[in-house]
Amino acid sequence: MAERVKIVEVGPRDGLQNEKQPIDVATKVALIERLVAAGVTHIEAASFVSPKWVPQMAGSAQVMAAVPRAHQAKGVHYSALTPNLQGLEAALAAGCEEVAVFGAASESFSRKNINCSIAESLERFRSVTEAAQAAGVRVRGYVSCVLGCPYEGAVAPAQVLRVALQLREMGCHEISLGDTIGRGTPDATRRLLEACLRELPATMLAGHYHDTWGMAVANVAASLEMGLRTFDSSVAGLGGCPYAAGASGNVASEDVVYLLQNMGYETGIDLDALVDAGLFISQALGRAPQSRVSQALRSACVS
Amino acid sequence: MAERVKIVEVGPRDGLQNEKQPIDVATKVALIERLVAAGVTHIEAASFVSPKWVPQMAGSAQVMAAVPRAHQAKGVHYSALTPNLQGLEAALAAGCEEVAVFGAASESFSRKNINCSIAESLERFRSVTEAAQAAGVRVRGYVSCVLGCPYEGAVAPAQVLRVALQLREMGCHEISLGDTIGRGTPDATRRLLEACLRELPATMLAGHYHDTWGMAVANVAASLEMGLRTFDSSVAGLGGCPYAAGASGNVASEDVVYLLQNMGYETGIDLDALVDAGLFISQALGRAPQSRVSQALRSACVS
Repeated sequence: MAERVKIVEVGPRDGLQNEKQPIDVATKVALIERLVAAGVTHIEAASFVSPKWVPQMAGSAQVMAAVPRAHQAKGVHYSALTPNLQGLEAALAAGCEEVAVFGAASESFSRKNINCSIAESLERFRSVTEAAQAAGVRVRGYVSCVLGCPYEGAVAPAQVLRVALQLREMGCHEISLGDTIGRGTPDATRRLLEACLRELPATMLAGHYHDTWGMAVANVAASLEMGLRTFDSSVAGLGGCPYAAGASGNVASEDVVYLLQNMGYETGIDLDALVDAGLFISQALGRAPQSRVSQALRSACVS
Repeated sequence: MAERVKIVEVGPRDGLQNEKQPIDVATKVALIERLVAAGVTHIEAASFVSPKWVPQMAGSAQVMAAVPRAHQAKGVHYSALTPNLQGLEAALAAGCEEVAVFGAASESFSRKNINCSIAESLERFRSVTEAAQAAGVRVRGYVSCVLGCPYEGAVAPAQVLRVALQLREMGCHEISLGDTIGRGTPDATRRLLEACLRELPATMLAGHYHDTWGMAVANVAASLEMGLRTFDSSVAGLGGCPYAAGASGNVASEDVVYLLQNMGYETGIDLDALVDAGLFISQALGRAPQSRVSQALRSACVS
C-alpha cells in the first residue's frame, strides 16, 4: 500500500485572496465542486475577515452555504481563515468545521500584515482557539515567513519553532509552515524542519511553500525526506506573490500531486481532473495556469 | 571557501536549436558575449550538423569565429555538438576546443532521433572521439532519455550506465545525463545516480534536467546530495520541449544558479547579469524568459 500524503488545497482562499480580480460566489463554489470531484479532501474555502480589508473574500458565508456538503461524510473537510472572534462567530454560523489563524515568525511582517506584534497576535488567536474548541471546531495554525521575511530577510528556525510551539500550546492540531516569499532552498528547509522536529511531531506539521523563486517543488521533496506528509498548495498556482507583483506565489497543486504520485505516494487526487479545475478558474481569471504540469499535460505531448 | 559547481550553459546550442524561430549569427554572438560577461565559463556555442536538418544551427562556423576569444585564457570554454566526422572536421576548422556527441539510453529514441540503433551511434561516435583526441580536443558525451523516453516510457538505470560506460571507454571526459522529457522525480534521479556512481566517479557526470514537469530544480538538489557538481542549463530556459510543444524544456540557468548560490555553492556567475542575458535573447525571440527567478527579480519585489 502506498503511503498517504495529505494535500490542503488553499486556492479558493489563500489563492483567490491574492488575485487582483475578485471572483463571484458562484464561480468559487463551482471551483470547489470541481476540486471535490477531483478527489481533494481538504479545502480552505473562505476567510471571515472584513470585506472592507479583503474584498476578494466577500461572500464567504454564501460560499460555505453552497459547498457540496454530502461529501463531508466521505472525508471532505472545509476550513476558513478566522483572524479574530468576530470572524470565528461568522465561521461557526456558516458551518465551518475547521478554522485557521495566521501568525508570523517575523516581527516586522506581523506588524505590517496584521498591524500588531507577534505576541499580541498570539493573544488574539488564543481567544479564537478557546472559543473554537468550546464549539467543537478544530483550529489550524499558520506561521508565515518561516524561510525569510520581505522586510527582515533571514528568519531563525528557533523563532519559527517558538511561534509554532505557542500555537500548539493553545490547541492548534496542525501547524502550517509558510515560506511566504518563496526564497527558501532545500537546505534551509531541512534546517528549519530539523529545528521544529526536535519539539513537534512530523504529523503535526504542514509544508506551505511558494514557488516565486522556483524552489517549491524541491522544498516539498526535502520535506518528504524529513518525514512531512502534509502540504498546502493552490490549484493553478492561484494567488501570485503579494511581495513580487507579477511573480508566482503558492506552489501549484498540480505540480505537487505530480511529484507525489510519481514518487509513489497516494494522494487520492485525479491529476487530470485537478488540471481541469485549474483551467476552469484560470479561465475565469483570464490567464493561463501557473503550473508546469498543467502546461505539459495540455501540450502536444507524445510522452 | 565555498565549494565550486560548474554550470555548462547549453542555451546557445541545445536551447536555440529547439526554438522555432531561427536566430541570426550576430544575435547568437551577442548572447554569448553577455553570458561570458556574466561569468559563465562553459558554453555550448554551436552545432556542426547539416543546416538542411537543423536550420537553427546554420552559421555555427561564423559563431565560433566571432565569440570572444580573449576570455579563453581566463578559463572560458566553448564547445560544439559534432554528430559525425564531417561535423568534427568543421568544428576543428572553426577552432572548437571541446566537442560533444549525443547518444541515447533508449533504442526507440535513438532510431527516431538519429536514425540508427544505439550500437550504431556509438560506433559512429568512436570515429569522432578518436579523431578529436588525435587533434587534442576533448569530447563530452551526452546520454538522453535517462529518466524516461517519449516512445518507450521507463528507462532502466542499468541501460543508462551501459551507454555511459561505453562513452567513457571511448574517451569522453564528461558524461551528461539528460532527462530529455523532464518526467524524472528526485527519487528516480537518486536511483539513476546510485547505479551510475557504482562505476563512474561523480566528477565525470553532469546532470542535464528538463523542467517540462516542474521537477528540474528538485532533481538538481537531489543530484547535489549524491555528489554531482556539474549541471547543464539554458539561460531563460531556452529551447522548450520538442516532445511537448509549448511546454518548458531545459531548466533555466537563472533558477539553477539561484539554487546553488543560496545553498552556499560558488558558481562564479553574476545572477543579475545572467538574468539580463536571458532577457536579451528572450526579447529577440519575442517572448518572456522561462525562469521563475528572472520573473521574481523583474517583479516589483520588496524582498
